[in-house]
Amino acid sequence: MNITEIIEKKKKGAALNKKEIAFFIDGVCNGDIPDYQISALLMAICLKGMNREETVNLTEKMAHSGDTLDLSGLSPTADKHSTGGVGDKTSLVVAPIAAACGVNIAKMSGRGLGHTGGTVDKLESIPGFQTELSEADFLKQVKAIGIAMIAQSESMVPADKILYALRDVTATIDSIPLIASSIMSKKLAAGADIIELDVKTGSGAFMKTKVQAIALAREMVAIGKAHGKRTAALITDMHDPLGTNIGNNLEVKEALSVLRGEGAADIRELCLNLATNIIALAKSIPAQQARLLALEAIDSGAALTKFRQMVAAQGGDVRYIDHPELFEKAAYSRTVCAPQSGFLTKMDTALIGNTAALLGAGRQKKGDAIDFTAGIIVHKKTGDAFKKGEALATLYTNKKDILTQAEQQYLSALRFGAKAPRYHQLIKEGII
Amino acid sequence: MNITEIIEKKKKGAALNKKEIAFFIDGVCNGDIPDYQISALLMAICLKGMNREETVNLTEKMAHSGDTLDLSGLSPTADKHSTGGVGDKTSLVVAPIAAACGVNIAKMSGRGLGHTGGTVDKLESIPGFQTELSEADFLKQVKAIGIAMIAQSESMVPADKILYALRDVTATIDSIPLIASSIMSKKLAAGADIIELDVKTGSGAFMKTKVQAIALAREMVAIGKAHGKRTAALITDMHDPLGTNIGNNLEVKEALSVLRGEGAADIRELCLNLATNIIALAKSIPAQQARLLALEAIDSGAALTKFRQMVAAQGGDVRYIDHPELFEKAAYSRTVCAPQSGFLTKMDTALIGNTAALLGAGRQKKGDAIDFTAGIIVHKKTGDAFKKGEALATLYTNKKDILTQAEQQYLSALRFGAKAPRYHQLIKEGII
Repeated sequence: MNITEIIEKKKKGAALNKKEIAFFIDGVCNGDIPDYQISALLMAICLKGMNREETVNLTEKMAHSGDTLDLSGLSPTADKHSTGGVGDKTSLVVAPIAAACGVNIAKMSGRGLGHTGGTVDKLESIPGFQTELSEADFLKQVKAIGIAMIAQSESMVPADKILYALRDVTATIDSIPLIASSIMSKKLAAGADIIELDVKTGSGAFMKTKVQAIALAREMVAIGKAHGKRTAALITDMHDPLGTNIGNNLEVKEALSVLRGEGAADIRELCLNLATNIIALAKSIPAQQARLLALEAIDSGAALTKFRQMVAAQGGDVRYIDHPELFEKAAYSRTVCAPQSGFLTKMDTALIGNTAALLGAGRQKKGDAIDFTAGIIVHKKTGDAFKKGEALATLYTNKKDILTQAEQQYLSALRFGAKAPRYHQLIKEGII
Repeated sequence: MNITEIIEKKKKGAALNKKEIAFFIDGVCNGDIPDYQISALLMAICLKGMNREETVNLTEKMAHSGDTLDLSGLSPTADKHSTGGVGDKTSLVVAPIAAACGVNIAKMSGRGLGHTGGTVDKLESIPGFQTELSEADFLKQVKAIGIAMIAQSESMVPADKILYALRDVTATIDSIPLIASSIMSKKLAAGADIIELDVKTGSGAFMKTKVQAIALAREMVAIGKAHGKRTAALITDMHDPLGTNIGNNLEVKEALSVLRGEGAADIRELCLNLATNIIALAKSIPAQQARLLALEAIDSGAALTKFRQMVAAQGGDVRYIDHPELFEKAAYSRTVCAPQSGFLTKMDTALIGNTAALLGAGRQKKGDAIDFTAGIIVHKKTGDAFKKGEALATLYTNKKDILTQAEQQYLSALRFGAKAPRYHQLIKEGII
């Protein structure tokens, strides 16, 4: 077998067989195939696509390119993945609800990059919280309390790290088979029985249209099922930031409100839907029944208790969980006021995410330091009415000199109008 | 400007502007753009194409990526390019005919690779012939005798060397804009006023179909004209080897026959057509009149005299020109006999070219040594009838042990039948 012939085959639009895909991924991992041949094949895949069988085979081969986690002794186990958005703190809420309902959560998460945040950064904004556990400690904690959330292992799915780094610089990110195999290979390697996917669409999401989001969700659900995983997806709105808070400890505070039965309607509803799906899949019960269990986990305080247990087990200071007002605040804040009366008709949510990053909440590139206290509290979202001078958002930062730039950038992300805009449905579709 | 954005743009099928193409080629040459981004863009070009303006701009930028030759003091100057075939010794005949008719030929040629031969190797099979001249000596010779043929300068069109090496290993060879810009950038850098192109089609050519060959020829003629060059192309047949002889000194001997007014009908006719086009473009005269001049150059011996003058000027032993029987012969030969009576219905000409290479006449990779005496004399071509046992070809080599393998390979390249096959027209189309 020869990589040039494999590239040629894909360039002509033919399907690659299992052996060819294995040859490719092996060559990627052991360095036998140079970058320039990998990127040529990635571009050919981007433009010619892959059928379901190819994508399933690619995902499986990638999943086994490094270490994998064996969770078989902990069933039922569930994992959850969001394709990334702004203000998306759902994992912090959904995981403890599911755990409180008897579904084990052994979750590995990523860090924030660009306009999107990452669960690991948010957890680390709880003083003392450790996200780097040994595999043994991680599994022991799940066995003991039913929940652990840590940083992605460096030794899992090395193929994805190499391919993603190349895709990032060769304009080959936006390919459904490549996105689906990248996400699902990590989910398969992480070993959970149940995979719940939250595919975002809108101005703050990678999938700008609902059609793209549905296609990606279908591909991922099919891959999960092909590997014997109970898999489901929701297509959810990311035209607006989710909830009100953007930024690491601000988002933890909002997650705690939701776990306490409070919080904005959109974030609460989305968390309930995601938790409902997981519980229904885990217990093989109807969604209505699963939803009641999720609501009960919040109302009884059981979900909050699970979260507190996890924080304690991973070295975090639980006083912050019961007294969120203890969380450190940024030194500077700025209220963004409405320049006119009217309605908010549109938010460029990616730009708002970038504004939060500018304030210190995010990274432009891997390894950049972040400020856990920086971020934005959003007071008005698409469809809201306001008078001139009313507060639209509050910006928080420790970098006083960028406040004015951030304020201008935030305002430039908004569109105003005299009439209320079309309503964006939060949960657009469920794929099972 | 940013290469990832340029790749993204081409991936989406948009046209690149002149600045973007310049940024790309500059980055290729100075090493700022890594291989993996170059190959991703090459694949995107391969699959999404380039419009005429892009291809013209790409060619111009590539042509100026290194040294260029200034032939302005020698007008009219002509260059000729063949897309490569088997037994294609036309340059050795066309150049001296044109020179004899007053068209200056300052020609740089390549070496053979794979199943195709190269003019430089053929010239070097004349004992003493030097193909490496300084630019000053090269131009001085053209000024003095109107003809010089040397090896391609290493310092011309470095962009093409880098791109071609990558295309070769990333399955991005077969792209009309990339082929056209590769060929035409070298022609533009070489500086002639007139460019005559011979685009081959058939089993021994890179362009397997006439439709592809016409598309490539049109693109190249348009590029030449866009740069103010008088450019024309012929689409010619390469289903069979051209003429009878394949291999370096065997082809020189055949070229000398044609210059002497002898030779097989196909090679003679093709050389006359190519020379006619060049003379017509140079003198702005009708083709019929140009053809009479070409015929006269052969019949009067003027073309052969030009060839002899060039050989003398470049250090070659002219005794070989007047007494081709002096050329060294291979130590071993093998007659390939017809295994049955009938017609030759098809020749896999690329495989025949590879058989000649196996005998020692060609290279599998750059830098391989070649045997000037090795090759094949073809006695029967497509459409010819023969009796069982009649000679189909004679193989020549100094490697006795590969004779049987070469014989089997040659036979495997032939198809036999009871009826004469469809006739392949030699000159299929002219593009001006």
